[in-house]
Amino acid sequence: MSTFDLTDHSHRRYNSLTGEWVLVSPHRSKRPWQGQQEETQREQRPEYDPSCYLCPTNTRANGETNPDYDATFVFVNDFAALQADSPSGSFSKGGLLKAESERGICKVICFSPRHDLTLSDMAVEDIKKVIDLWQKEYLELGALEYINYVQIFENKGQVMGSSNPHPHGQIWAQSSVPVEPAKEMAQQAAYYRENGRSLLADYLQLELEEKSRVVLENEHFAALVPFWAVWPFETIIISKRHFQHLGQISEDEKVAYAKIMKQLSAVYDSLFQTSFPYSAGLHQSPTDGQEHPEWHFHMHFYPPLLRSATVKKFMVGYEMMGNPQRDITPESAAERLRSLA
Amino acid sequence: MSTFDLTDHSHRRYNSLTGEWVLVSPHRSKRPWQGQQEETQREQRPEYDPSCYLCPTNTRANGETNPDYDATFVFVNDFAALQADSPSGSFSKGGLLKAESERGICKVICFSPRHDLTLSDMAVEDIKKVIDLWQKEYLELGALEYINYVQIFENKGQVMGSSNPHPHGQIWAQSSVPVEPAKEMAQQAAYYRENGRSLLADYLQLELEEKSRVVLENEHFAALVPFWAVWPFETIIISKRHFQHLGQISEDEKVAYAKIMKQLSAVYDSLFQTSFPYSAGLHQSPTDGQEHPEWHFHMHFYPPLLRSATVKKFMVGYEMMGNPQRDITPESAAERLRSLA
Ligand SMILES: O=P(O)(O)O[C@H]1O[C@H](CO)[C@@H](O)[C@H](O)[C@H]1O
Ligand SMILES: O=P(O)(O)O[C@H]1O[C@H](CO)[C@@H](O)[C@H](O)[C@H]1O
Repeated sequence: MSTFDLTDHSHRRYNSLTGEWVLVSPHRSKRPWQGQQEETQREQRPEYDPSCYLCPTNTRANGETNPDYDATFVFVNDFAALQADSPSGSFSKGGLLKAESERGICKVICFSPRHDLTLSDMAVEDIKKVIDLWQKEYLELGALEYINYVQIFENKGQVMGSSNPHPHGQIWAQSSVPVEPAKEMAQQAAYYRENGRSLLADYLQLELEEKSRVVLENEHFAALVPFWAVWPFETIIISKRHFQHLGQISEDEKVAYAKIMKQLSAVYDSLFQTSFPYSAGLHQSPTDGQEHPEWHFHMHFYPPLLRSATVKKFMVGYEMMGNPQRDITPESAAERLRSLA
Repeated sequence: MSTFDLTDHSHRRYNSLTGEWVLVSPHRSKRPWQGQQEETQREQRPEYDPSCYLCPTNTRANGETNPDYDATFVFVNDFAALQADSPSGSFSKGGLLKAESERGICKVICFSPRHDLTLSDMAVEDIKKVIDLWQKEYLELGALEYINYVQIFENKGQVMGSSNPHPHGQIWAQSSVPVEPAKEMAQQAAYYRENGRSLLADYLQLELEEKSRVVLENEHFAALVPFWAVWPFETIIISKRHFQHLGQISEDEKVAYAKIMKQLSAVYDSLFQTSFPYSAGLHQSPTDGQEHPEWHFHMHFYPPLLRSATVKKFMVGYEMMGNPQRDITPESAAERLRSLA
């Protein structure tokens, strides 16, 4: 019998950041694919689209008119999942039916007035303006008494449920800490208590030594395929300095962060010669008035594509009932991405 | 200010079975949809398709020929994610990179020789044969010393990653207990320790009294939209009797189980006048040699469609970075399904 080898044999990997496991099946990528193909969006888009509800000067569904903005533009989501004026209350029955009211604010952020750009096309100084706005929103929303967590994210591409190709992201700010950051908080706090250091700082050091999963690196940030990646080409951007949130980032770090986001999305676009779809999101410390010395700023990229611009990985039956499963190793994914950097 | 109302105001619901939360935004279904539309598969399929690798007498990619089966047919997956002969071992570095080898067996189960059927078209007695086979496989695979958990599931429809419309499901049996059943085990065990009763038995009793989330019911099973449902039309089938796994089901219960599965899939099909896609899966007690008196047999249905045969719910940015979010209440989903029963 051969000896166990991460590149050849089925195994589970532990996600140190969430405490959960992922099943890795390195040999399975040979499977032929006869299933659903996604559409690619290859059409050239105009710089300005009169029918786009995010372009400058256009009127949205609710009758409001967008300003003639020249960098970024933020507004409260016209169909918000969370509302600031929800009455507070709770529901409970038999100990098994439990609900709690949730207050919050949902916003939309346009990254650029240009309808035809994505992060990979934008100038670093323009991406920096997006970071400036993320910072401002995180601090302002987080300062509200009833907001304890601020989730900033981007859905890019139709396959990721984005209904408008205009470059934009969202912010959902709310009273409770959602499930995923709560898991990360518990893991980071336990590590910090035990070691007095940041989990992600130690993890990043290991990765920068090993190099096999690193995709991009600059003075202040690194982008890598995490050891426990779920999505085929999933990456994480981690700050080299241990800080908790964008309220603490320096101007130099902002430029480095803008650069690495631009480069990463360009690498993604060149992988399958398509405007690469993904959901991306920042994980910052909760705004619950606590210190959170354990928290380490990072950003996840979850892209669905597996084999080509049209064949994605389906997280379905086994993945929903059991746990996530991947068909290529994080190391081989990182190698492919790195070769395009 | 109005008083908190589950049908009107944003809230979080607690999933007693997993210990996690879901965000519910009742008012959000009014949002217009301009995004991706799924394709529907409306074509009539032939009873036998010479190019289908699951039809009787056809040859599969690896050169094997299917028997001329007349009810069900099971074989080891030609592109299995888990393998029985993987060497055992583990990997660890710096306390933060951790992996363990995983042995297992993946099988494919054809539900019928007929290429053109789904569970909703099949006769109850033929669905019962599928349950017979699930029972046999659960017991045989579970009896293997290195198999501690058996996941039986079905991916139906292209949108759920199924690459072949021939009615079939899968079994992934493995050494470790995956993340989702592990969560359910912890919650069920805690409840059982505290109350000496099955969590799902008590939950089912509450639901049968309340009625608002119940879709179908017969002598031995009920199908309902769980209070904590994530997917728009998610349902769970729960056995009325508290038993752990299919090794303990009676012949009468098998017939009732076959009936409720058939009825539920017919209700689904009539909701949007389409062969309704979903991932479904049985959650049974682990086969780890322990008793598991806490475990209560049940089956989840996770269907992706939200508004029509072509518009699904996207679990993307916020859902991936925060937690699942739904746009209609479980009660209104149940009411619609019940009206079709
Ligand atoms: O085994 P299949 O049907 O080819 O594959 C399908 O189900 C598997 C188990 O849920 C998933 O891992 C795959 O992504 C999906 O396409
Ligand atoms: O708000 P949007 O872009 O209309 O909607 C998109 O992102 C949301 C947040 O991840 C999801 O809940 C929706 O399912 C998705 O379609």
